[in-house]
Amino acid sequence: MGNRVRAVVAGATGYSGRDLIKYLLHHPQIELAGAFASRSGEPAPLKLIHPQLTGLTDLVCQPFDESAVAKLDPQVIFLGTPNEFSHEVVPALLESGATVVDLSGAFRLRDASLYPKYYGFEHARPDLLGKAVYGLTEFVRQELRGAKLIANPGCYPTTIIVPMKPLLDAGLIDTDQPVICDSKSGVTGAGKSPTAGTHFVEVSESFKSYNVFKHRHTPEIAQGLGLANSPNSLIFTPHLLPINRGILSTIYAKLNDGVTRADILKAWQEAFPASSFVRIFDSAQLPEIKFVANTPFCDIGCAVDAASGQLIVVSAEDNLLKGAASQALQNANLALGFDEGAGLR
Amino acid sequence: MGNRVRAVVAGATGYSGRDLIKYLLHHPQIELAGAFASRSGEPAPLKLIHPQLTGLTDLVCQPFDESAVAKLDPQVIFLGTPNEFSHEVVPALLESGATVVDLSGAFRLRDASLYPKYYGFEHARPDLLGKAVYGLTEFVRQELRGAKLIANPGCYPTTIIVPMKPLLDAGLIDTDQPVICDSKSGVTGAGKSPTAGTHFVEVSESFKSYNVFKHRHTPEIAQGLGLANSPNSLIFTPHLLPINRGILSTIYAKLNDGVTRADILKAWQEAFPASSFVRIFDSAQLPEIKFVANTPFCDIGCAVDAASGQLIVVSAEDNLLKGAASQALQNANLALGFDEGAGLR
Amino acid sequence: MGNRVRAVVAGATGYSGRDLIKYLLHHPQIELAGAFASRSGEPAPLKLIHPQLTGLTDLVCQPFDESAVAKLDPQVIFLGTPNEFSHEVVPALLESGATVVDLSGAFRLRDASLYPKYYGFEHARPDLLGKAVYGLTEFVRQELRGAKLIANPGCYPTTIIVPMKPLLDAGLIDTDQPVICDSKSGVTGAGKSPTAGTHFVEVSESFKSYNVFKHRHTPEIAQGLGLANSPNSLIFTPHLLPINRGILSTIYAKLNDGVTRADILKAWQEAFPASSFVRIFDSAQLPEIKFVANTPFCDIGCAVDAASGQLIVVSAEDNLLKGAASQALQNANLALGFDEGAGLR
Amino acid sequence: MGNRVRAVVAGATGYSGRDLIKYLLHHPQIELAGAFASRSGEPAPLKLIHPQLTGLTDLVCQPFDESAVAKLDPQVIFLGTPNEFSHEVVPALLESGATVVDLSGAFRLRDASLYPKYYGFEHARPDLLGKAVYGLTEFVRQELRGAKLIANPGCYPTTIIVPMKPLLDAGLIDTDQPVICDSKSGVTGAGKSPTAGTHFVEVSESFKSYNVFKHRHTPEIAQGLGLANSPNSLIFTPHLLPINRGILSTIYAKLNDGVTRADILKAWQEAFPASSFVRIFDSAQLPEIKFVANTPFCDIGCAVDAASGQLIVVSAEDNLLKGAASQALQNANLALGFDEGAGLR
Repeated sequence: MGNRVRAVVAGATGYSGRDLIKYLLHHPQIELAGAFASRSGEPAPLKLIHPQLTGLTDLVCQPFDESAVAKLDPQVIFLGTPNEFSHEVVPALLESGATVVDLSGAFRLRDASLYPKYYGFEHARPDLLGKAVYGLTEFVRQELRGAKLIANPGCYPTTIIVPMKPLLDAGLIDTDQPVICDSKSGVTGAGKSPTAGTHFVEVSESFKSYNVFKHRHTPEIAQGLGLANSPNSLIFTPHLLPINRGILSTIYAKLNDGVTRADILKAWQEAFPASSFVRIFDSAQLPEIKFVANTPFCDIGCAVDAASGQLIVVSAEDNLLKGAASQALQNANLALGFDEGAGLR
Repeated sequence: MGNRVRAVVAGATGYSGRDLIKYLLHHPQIELAGAFASRSGEPAPLKLIHPQLTGLTDLVCQPFDESAVAKLDPQVIFLGTPNEFSHEVVPALLESGATVVDLSGAFRLRDASLYPKYYGFEHARPDLLGKAVYGLTEFVRQELRGAKLIANPGCYPTTIIVPMKPLLDAGLIDTDQPVICDSKSGVTGAGKSPTAGTHFVEVSESFKSYNVFKHRHTPEIAQGLGLANSPNSLIFTPHLLPINRGILSTIYAKLNDGVTRADILKAWQEAFPASSFVRIFDSAQLPEIKFVANTPFCDIGCAVDAASGQLIVVSAEDNLLKGAASQALQNANLALGFDEGAGLR
Repeated sequence: MGNRVRAVVAGATGYSGRDLIKYLLHHPQIELAGAFASRSGEPAPLKLIHPQLTGLTDLVCQPFDESAVAKLDPQVIFLGTPNEFSHEVVPALLESGATVVDLSGAFRLRDASLYPKYYGFEHARPDLLGKAVYGLTEFVRQELRGAKLIANPGCYPTTIIVPMKPLLDAGLIDTDQPVICDSKSGVTGAGKSPTAGTHFVEVSESFKSYNVFKHRHTPEIAQGLGLANSPNSLIFTPHLLPINRGILSTIYAKLNDGVTRADILKAWQEAFPASSFVRIFDSAQLPEIKFVANTPFCDIGCAVDAASGQLIVVSAEDNLLKGAASQALQNANLALGFDEGAGLR
Repeated sequence: MGNRVRAVVAGATGYSGRDLIKYLLHHPQIELAGAFASRSGEPAPLKLIHPQLTGLTDLVCQPFDESAVAKLDPQVIFLGTPNEFSHEVVPALLESGATVVDLSGAFRLRDASLYPKYYGFEHARPDLLGKAVYGLTEFVRQELRGAKLIANPGCYPTTIIVPMKPLLDAGLIDTDQPVICDSKSGVTGAGKSPTAGTHFVEVSESFKSYNVFKHRHTPEIAQGLGLANSPNSLIFTPHLLPINRGILSTIYAKLNDGVTRADILKAWQEAFPASSFVRIFDSAQLPEIKFVANTPFCDIGCAVDAASGQLIVVSAEDNLLKGAASQALQNANLALGFDEGAGLR
């Protein structure tokens, strides 16, 4: 196993980091060489941080430090770290020649001017924004080969861009009516830090919208779909579900005249071959969160009202997997020249 | 207490029936004279059917029988029964002179021709459809005085008609863009019968849409809002939340030119005085299900994107209370000449 | 209403404080004169802290300050505050002549020497420990009349002392075998502060024991039952349920020779008349959390294996109500000379 | 892959059957040759029965029929079927020479006389009860080699026998005090049929005990531990948790004089090598359900009160995996001569 590719995971204490580590511990061509937390803190065995990993690894999670990372000589570095943290460390990490898969939003938007408003910081490296591959795997397989900086998509955007991009690209959608995305996410999407908003009692037996008209995934979705970043063309409303894992998006759009459900299914089938991690629901059954929880799939389905030409798309994924860790691994596999699904099945 | 009004509850074994009984057991002017289940079955103490009622009542729930109801000489009869059952028994019950509050959909639609498609039966009494008061209390207080047949609104429609009717009536909404209602309900809305769809394991840690473009509450909402029953003007998509009680609706609409958030709040304030069971959220805080669970309120709030004129309304209620039992009691109170909130605070 | 008793609630930002306020807002003989948070912080309307209270009160919650409390001239003060806070402020509050109902553990244990080990502080007022009435209402109605300091029982102890004290007092239990209390609580019992242990994702779809052999309620239970504070006579194991409200305790004990289930039910019936807030389940149905959630009752039931003389008691309560707020109000009502159930039905 | 072992799963529509199929679809040495439901019903693709399996298999689930099974010439047959069904079909299936792994209780108890009381039927094949290997893998690896009939253990018994058998075998437990097992299970343990007891609303936000002193797993646990089937030596109380998957058992026992926590950990380490599917928690951290959900492990840990010699063991597993499907596969692997963990990591 000496010639397996060496990987490092930073942000190993979070939920995405943990799930990425689970995959890497069973990957046939990649070995987990190191795991890092934030800069401060003490080293601690991964199995104490995530007792789920008991019996699976004795690796010790270290405080993040560029030289400690470099010493491990990794060929691929996964960053499950906060936006500002990724923004800060990516340039130096890239210099080592490793492929960097960043699960944060720090390199997702091509337009640097959006960062102050949506992320609260001025972007220092607009040049890298131009070079980063936005890793919604299914649409950029060629660009991923040999890529050095991969901006792994946001969890919400994945559920919306996957089904809608092929329809918009094929000219099936009447964009005079805004595309309305009503999305619902489990609580792992809010991260592991305890806050008033993630307290069990505040979430359980409840449901709420949040960041209405203001969520930072809105410009990312608009960019991915080629729509203007305005509620006249795109409305995105996130909600918090009292569950651990999973996102379901209900998407409303107007079809161009004469477009049928069969046209939509055809556009999807051309975009997503049977071997891919996008599953097309072509029967009356629509996607539900329980079908994708703990899997690397994004499920998509739709209903059409023929008389009015109104379309409803329903998509679902596990936000920690296709919305984070498993898509990161799809991307890394392709960047490194492996089979896209290695370690994922 | 001999001169209190005598009430009967049919459908006492269901969730709405149970919650209605809880209210009636503490009502200052109404006494619970009898409780009935479906036609078959054996008599059983309410406290064995609903152990929550232990210590609160020794009343025995009887199999439904018109003559047994009549013998109790009730002035008000609440029906928490299936649609077909209400459709069948209401005409005879009305002849006794009692006020009938029907919580089913049997008398909600004025257009009898919609019943076969949405309810699966031909309506036998279109004349009664014309006479029934559609009891969305806040809009029909005058009509309710002395009313004999009250069609209590559906749980979903209440959350949508309450906030949107005042806006449509005031001409604030541009109806060229469809009004899109993305609604999410807890499982009590599906009733008490065990089905594959209400099995704990199928609901917990999941989330799904259902009856897309086809739910029977769609024509009820269209009627309540004065919109055409077509996805060109109104789209309603229900979803199932892994919680017991509560509905949250996220409603998307286009404002007419120049309409502001202040105009919306003003329309609501005129429609719903502070004393009512509709609470207006006029700060940045939007309604959430936990704020209304186990209360008789419908909460409403909104966000507006000024540049595009797009409106998002968020409303919430307890589906068993404002969406069923407490609204039934508001209606009965007004029909009987009592204070609207008697027994509800 | 000028001659209603004036009440103050400190710790109004917590869950018990909130539920107590809900009761007080509808109490026929008590009016809520003021609400206080901790010492620091800014004044804020209760309805912003607890949006559930929207439309019910316009009271502003103030930072705690003895002189501000005194200015309101309350006859009864409820403390839903941390142990150390209550320990500090109670002596001064008592001097005003008001009745103090302390929901913390600061004055529950008669033996001051237990405080360092179980509460982490040296008790400064052992004299008050001797004077405080341990307010498990059902057993101390006489002592409560005119009481000035009431130590409201812990949530877990209530579920155990209520069913077991009458059995031990009647000599039905063989104490050679330890009384084993396996208790399970909802998350509101852990308070409102966000911690790793109350994060939704760490609680949902999981279950755990905690503080095994070490929980601070152990000596309180032993005191209440007259058992030695040792695992040889009493074992108490708390667990965390993925629900908001409610405790269920499963209690194992050995009966003395010849004792039957009928003897147990008889002891309970003598201790708890039908009018009380303890409900005896005398059929095959045992208590469940859903029967008591959002009610002021403690439900108790049992099963006996006649051949072996082994007893299993199952009890349940809402930890925020009979385990906190409603029991506090039972106690205050009796101390102030009102009907025990005033404001609770 | 032509020389892989051919497997059949009967009871493929249930939760255990589904999870077993998920394992088999990725097993390196076993191929899934067929899937069967109950005797009646129509053939249906597995991916329509369990949409989770979309994209993973196109196999069609058939109505059960002995000759249809035989036609597939399976070397191993898994039965995730009801007790009576397994009892009826096992004898004929054995004649084919295949190894039968029965996940029901039909062949678990060696004493045939217990079947009428605990399972409601007279056992027709006491001879097979004597030949069946009770497949708690960790204790019967030798007996499993080449075994033809394996009675896969119950979900609850696995969590109790795993930690307690080594302690009883080593003479560490004082059996004068009953071993008390307070167990809590998720709802998948109740099966997939919708019943009043598995309705979401009856389970969510609640918790209950059931079958107190009467659960059919009691004699199975007593047999596994070599204890008498009486509450004098063993008490087992199951409870229903509002979660999907997982069991946690809290077990109370008295240690013999001088036995320490170190002695317990040593007994466990000797019984369960690091490579096994039993994980020993030897720090202060005790097992929790979230650590084992969706894994094939049984986690065990303990606390001891040295002064009194009282022991509390906490164990946890995923009831569908180590409590059913993954243990079935451990057993099949050993019976067929494969590595115990094949297909499980």
